[in-house]
Amino acid sequence: MTTIRAYAANEPNAPLQSFTYELGELGPEEVDIDVIACGVCHSDLSMVNNDWGLTAFPLVPGHEVIGTVAAKGASVEHLAVGQKIGLGWFSKSCLHCRPCLDGDHNLCDSREHTIVGRHGGFAEKVRAHWSWAIPVPDSLDVTSAGPLFCGGITVFNPIMQSGVKPTDRVGVIGIGGLGHLALQFLNKWGCEVTAFSSTQAKAREAREFGAHHVVNSRDDTELEKIAGSLDFLLVTVNVPLNWQLYLNTLRAKGTFHVVGAVPEPMAISAFDLLFFQRSVTGTPLGSPATMTAMLEFCARHEIAPMIETFPMSKVNDAFEHLEAGKARYRIVLENDFA
Amino acid sequence: MTTIRAYAANEPNAPLQSFTYELGELGPEEVDIDVIACGVCHSDLSMVNNDWGLTAFPLVPGHEVIGTVAAKGASVEHLAVGQKIGLGWFSKSCLHCRPCLDGDHNLCDSREHTIVGRHGGFAEKVRAHWSWAIPVPDSLDVTSAGPLFCGGITVFNPIMQSGVKPTDRVGVIGIGGLGHLALQFLNKWGCEVTAFSSTQAKAREAREFGAHHVVNSRDDTELEKIAGSLDFLLVTVNVPLNWQLYLNTLRAKGTFHVVGAVPEPMAISAFDLLFFQRSVTGTPLGSPATMTAMLEFCARHEIAPMIETFPMSKVNDAFEHLEAGKARYRIVLENDFA
Repeated sequence: MTTIRAYAANEPNAPLQSFTYELGELGPEEVDIDVIACGVCHSDLSMVNNDWGLTAFPLVPGHEVIGTVAAKGASVEHLAVGQKIGLGWFSKSCLHCRPCLDGDHNLCDSREHTIVGRHGGFAEKVRAHWSWAIPVPDSLDVTSAGPLFCGGITVFNPIMQSGVKPTDRVGVIGIGGLGHLALQFLNKWGCEVTAFSSTQAKAREAREFGAHHVVNSRDDTELEKIAGSLDFLLVTVNVPLNWQLYLNTLRAKGTFHVVGAVPEPMAISAFDLLFFQRSVTGTPLGSPATMTAMLEFCARHEIAPMIETFPMSKVNDAFEHLEAGKARYRIVLENDFA
Repeated sequence: MTTIRAYAANEPNAPLQSFTYELGELGPEEVDIDVIACGVCHSDLSMVNNDWGLTAFPLVPGHEVIGTVAAKGASVEHLAVGQKIGLGWFSKSCLHCRPCLDGDHNLCDSREHTIVGRHGGFAEKVRAHWSWAIPVPDSLDVTSAGPLFCGGITVFNPIMQSGVKPTDRVGVIGIGGLGHLALQFLNKWGCEVTAFSSTQAKAREAREFGAHHVVNSRDDTELEKIAGSLDFLLVTVNVPLNWQLYLNTLRAKGTFHVVGAVPEPMAISAFDLLFFQRSVTGTPLGSPATMTAMLEFCARHEIAPMIETFPMSKVNDAFEHLEAGKARYRIVLENDFA
């Protein structure tokens, strides 16, 4: 038995507290990871607050893990103890259902999640099925790479799935933890990139991340001016917007793609779709193969999350910073267990 | 000058009356068509009633024309006088805008419509730009082929554009003028086909058109039973439905495709899209190349609209039959000008 030191929430909306738990026996297809660093995502907060009714307390959050293989089950042949790997939102796929056989392990019929019914990466160790323990290229910085495993893959996956072309004109709504990575990806993808933000103070940084144009996301006149100009529009925010105006920024055959968990249903007019053959689409995080492609793309183009670090023991300070909307642009906790 | 005998509406909601107008000089890229027969579409009614605010009165409706080339402009080299052609909803594309250059003449920036600002096919002759005068294969029956040019291409185009595969499980909502053709197309496409209808009397015919399964479109329990089973769902109706239940009949990566002009915005939840990578899409009628592919597919598989015929002089009886919801499944007017 291995006793794991971690930080856990014991009830909704409570500060995290020191917590220990026992890891059971390592399964033949499982991997234990020595955590080096772990990103902090809004979904960690949502789980702590039990916003989705999915949380089992106590809960150890954390699903943007970078670490090394501490131990591996007998069936895990392709990973070596000590190897650098990452772990994101998903922690197990069955490998045998139709989506898994298609390479869509992220759409697995019985996919499991790192912090749903399991303990996550705000800890010295975390366990997962090998399918989601993804090798990290040597040239990536281990401290900043964690956020690629949730925030990054959330916006990289739609670029792959929607078949965005380097000749496309694209837009990104929301310049935060997700959006600042989407801008970098799409710029290096070769596209003409427009950033939409309600925070004008972010305009200069949006350009540094790769935006060629910056538009005020709440200024209807600016949106009307660019009607019919975009091939692909990525929505990273989770607040209601004037969906019709945004749909109409698309060219014929354009795609409006949602990754933000907008709680209210979007009012979509059939006319806005069918007259110009537009699509409204959405994706969850990407598959292991897509994650590997993303990591290679980041290594080749020197793409990295812009992060602020906290020692893991200051996790509650980190959550406070995140909740205040101050994160620029992603927070990473560094393992400081002695 | 050529005087054309036709049937026109002189004001909204009025019966059609005998009407003549002068065709001006034939342009170098234009074609005059001797009308053999012309289908009757709900859009003809909508235009007569000025439902969309687009109608200029007097209006000669009719945009499902089969006829022969009566005369052609000097630049029209590829068509012969006397050749069988069809004309649908679109009557002109510019050929030089980006969508036209991409082969998407149906998405042309300045596309024109057969009965918007022009006179249509409830007449002895109708004129169009050559781009939408589509040759009809010899083996197709001229009387029944007209409805392919609007109703048919409306449901064939999404099959092409969405990349429906013969291995897919597909559904068609609404078994009317559009749906009865969609069932035939998708059956011959090789798919497993489910028809959704609120009219149980149509169940037997739906199977004859090619449905392998028939589901009551208003029975939520039946919809829940087939949750997660379809790759592609085609909505041919224009009434609000329980969109969430229908979205949930889709498998991961499934597509919900709208061709019906549903007037109220559809309430689409981001969660229903992104968890399983689903899409909501729409298309207008297809391009000339897609129309040609459809006509060849119909000829090869002996697909034809099921029609009821009226002499053109009985156009008001035909409209009444259509408005009463009695058409099984498409009405065609045969030219009886003496």
